Amino acid sequence: MRLLVIGGDAAGMSAASQARRLRGPDELEIVVVERGGHTSYSACGIPYFVGGEVAGADALVARTPAEHRERGIVLHLRHEAVEIDTGGARVRVRDLASGGERWEPYDHLMIATGAVPVRPDLPGVDAAGIFGVQTLDDGIAIHRAVERDRPARAVVVGSGYIGLEMAEALVRRGIEVTIVEAGEQPMRAMDPDMGALVADAVRGLGIHLRLDEPVEGFDTGGGRVTAVRTARRTIPADLVVLGLGVRPGSDLARAAGIETGPTGGIVTDRRMRTRTANVWAAGDCVETRHLVSGAPVAIALGTHANKQGRVAGTGIGGGYATFPGVVGTAISKICKVEVAHTGLNSRDAERAGFDALTATVESTTRAGYHPGATTMRTKLVFERRTGRLLGAQIVGEEGAAKRIDGLAIALWNGMTVEEMTGLDLAYAPPFSPVWDPVLITARKAAALVEEAMRDGG
Amino acid sequence: MRLLVIGGDAAGMSAASQARRLRGPDELEIVVVERGGHTSYSACGIPYFVGGEVAGADALVARTPAEHRERGIVLHLRHEAVEIDTGGARVRVRDLASGGERWEPYDHLMIATGAVPVRPDLPGVDAAGIFGVQTLDDGIAIHRAVERDRPARAVVVGSGYIGLEMAEALVRRGIEVTIVEAGEQPMRAMDPDMGALVADAVRGLGIHLRLDEPVEGFDTGGGRVTAVRTARRTIPADLVVLGLGVRPGSDLARAAGIETGPTGGIVTDRRMRTRTANVWAAGDCVETRHLVSGAPVAIALGTHANKQGRVAGTGIGGGYATFPGVVGTAISKICKVEVAHTGLNSRDAERAGFDALTATVESTTRAGYHPGATTMRTKLVFERRTGRLLGAQIVGEEGAAKRIDGLAIALWNGMTVEEMTGLDLAYAPPFSPVWDPVLITARKAAALVEEAMRDGG
Repeated sequence: MRLLVIGGDAAGMSAASQARRLRGPDELEIVVVERGGHTSYSACGIPYFVGGEVAGADALVARTPAEHRERGIVLHLRHEAVEIDTGGARVRVRDLASGGERWEPYDHLMIATGAVPVRPDLPGVDAAGIFGVQTLDDGIAIHRAVERDRPARAVVVGSGYIGLEMAEALVRRGIEVTIVEAGEQPMRAMDPDMGALVADAVRGLGIHLRLDEPVEGFDTGGGRVTAVRTARRTIPADLVVLGLGVRPGSDLARAAGIETGPTGGIVTDRRMRTRTANVWAAGDCVETRHLVSGAPVAIALGTHANKQGRVAGTGIGGGYATFPGVVGTAISKICKVEVAHTGLNSRDAERAGFDALTATVESTTRAGYHPGATTMRTKLVFERRTGRLLGAQIVGEEGAAKRIDGLAIALWNGMTVEEMTGLDLAYAPPFSPVWDPVLITARKAAALVEEAMRDGG
Repeated sequence: MRLLVIGGDAAGMSAASQARRLRGPDELEIVVVERGGHTSYSACGIPYFVGGEVAGADALVARTPAEHRERGIVLHLRHEAVEIDTGGARVRVRDLASGGERWEPYDHLMIATGAVPVRPDLPGVDAAGIFGVQTLDDGIAIHRAVERDRPARAVVVGSGYIGLEMAEALVRRGIEVTIVEAGEQPMRAMDPDMGALVADAVRGLGIHLRLDEPVEGFDTGGGRVTAVRTARRTIPADLVVLGLGVRPGSDLARAAGIETGPTGGIVTDRRMRTRTANVWAAGDCVETRHLVSGAPVAIALGTHANKQGRVAGTGIGGGYATFPGVVGTAISKICKVEVAHTGLNSRDAERAGFDALTATVESTTRAGYHPGATTMRTKLVFERRTGRLLGAQIVGEEGAAKRIDGLAIALWNGMTVEEMTGLDLAYAPPFSPVWDPVLITARKAAALVEEAMRDGG
């Protein structure tokens, strides 16, 4: 039996490792082709490497190629899969160094081609000094540019999680940073009122935040970027980071007739099997089920990639495991500001057809009298008729955001806000006020549901 | 209508406040008798006040008598209820200053008599310099003794949450502290292996920890304590704190024929009604249902007292609310060490008749490469046959212990460890490794369940 894996990062190598755990080298040959030069790295760690909080790129690598090879995994770095022939059960692979190509056969094929950064088709976008943040090689390139060119001014395009984290990293390096965002708020996964808190926090760091200003192009000089242009202004820049999000890297699979869904991600079942025989897929290239909306979603996140890869590897190794879907939990820290959300925000809840209410409460992370208590805001989105929790958002400081986990688990279990008011959450003054912020917000939400019921809502 | 409340701390004043929210002064007269001189204070905050982290005792008071009175609540401080006459619907109240007594009538009676500290019947236990830690007055007395007498050596008897927190507080004041514990480990709510981690941490603070040494008596001189005696040694002490836990303060209710249960706590239904007409009870004086074992438990904790008081107040005010029970969540911080548990430990699971397994994992609070990542240990207790989660324990440092909330919510919802492996928990390097410690431990637990199934266990 031969397992061929396309992509040597989180999903691909989790699958390979798990399959190896279940099947030794004499039972299963495992071959991985990886376009880049690294394996099993934390893309989420790139901002901390660029910002200097993490000493070297090596620290972001969970398992090196050598470690994988020691476990009997054949690894071809700088090799790109260029065609999948599902009928012939083989993949055409190009050696990027020599340009030579060959066919690699498979019994099981694991597609872990990751995500493709959104790159706007704008004048000058290919100039030197403009970077994506997708692979570890991207991270190393930005780090090198910062160290070598000592840029004075940087522009980050996009203000989602990665955009804000990169902006923080560059500020840490003493660079003057402008964020340019096409939308009306940063972090569009949050409701506008919560996004406004993030905007305030970002501006508090000395970052220029330009909202409602789509990028129109890049000025260049000698092939290098010199400025970013919007309808309103020209922003000089020695370095530009594109943080416009990603889409599933499913082109290769689609070209081979492997089914993709409305999000562009590869369609799989709960065991991470595609609709094509003996072909598995996992990670940023697939779509999965959102357990609250019921709709397919493509969420590029290392933790899902690792879980899905492991599930696929278990199946390939002859075992049984499933990936049930996601509730859309995410978290970030921009200097001291912590931000997190799970489930649906107000807009998404409405789009999914829910008649939703929200409750927002400002409270403290610890007992008010305890040193280190800081203010945090918690917002719940819930169904008017039933009180069922649909989503939650948190903005605060130290100790605030990881509380989203409890809300994600409540959401996972379909709890109502009324039930949540009784939850037995941990209380001691260094950790929580006697009414945890989650409980206070649930209480307020439950009162709104009761009121709506009385009003015949 | 007249509501009489016995006890002006968390449960009593929550009930009074909530009843007032629902019924104005012309509908409902509210009278509270309180034995001490304070209302609505955080007993859990006493160690931080004694240790000097919180500036004054006032900071621990959530609402002063004056604030309650402003809301139309009549408050008799330094008044003790000495007899309940349920037939006559009245309570005999003694003015502790004058010694005079009178009968106070009620339509609704709210019993919130709190807990009684366990005080061993040992020679010398009544000497000056020996303190309990139950009321704010106790806390003020200890604080005064520390400030005024500048004790050089202190002994804390008992090593549960409050004992350890008081030991830390005294160490912060530069006092040499010995903890004397009758059992074989500190924090007996934890399994022995987790308790051993706590013991190491406590000793690392320079605290002398004497395990397996029941106190046999106190040496005194001139009416003051001078030493604590165990079978093995005599420990000189200028100050002694008794942290031996508490029992429900239900004597007054029991004497009036109000039903108490096997824990000694007053029996109530989900709406906090006792078995006696028009008599409600809440807080440390009641027993409640443990949602995992199904057994009655008495857990003295401010967060339950507040919730139960609010539920009772809602009922008294004509509304509907219930207190569903607890899963036994608790958390503490001793210097930098964080400790938490929820549900049943191994011993309690066995006692409750569960055939239980455990899984323990050591991991990091953040991505391993992220500055500030520290080691934490997570232990799950779960049913062998079904994989149902029964309890969890955490020992670690910054960012570790509040993760217990997620586990408490999983427990609340009856999740199995297998289901938990799929949970969508928040991941970003400053908050978690890509596999959250909760997920890794659930994964290990699920593998043990599968193994037990294969072995026909």
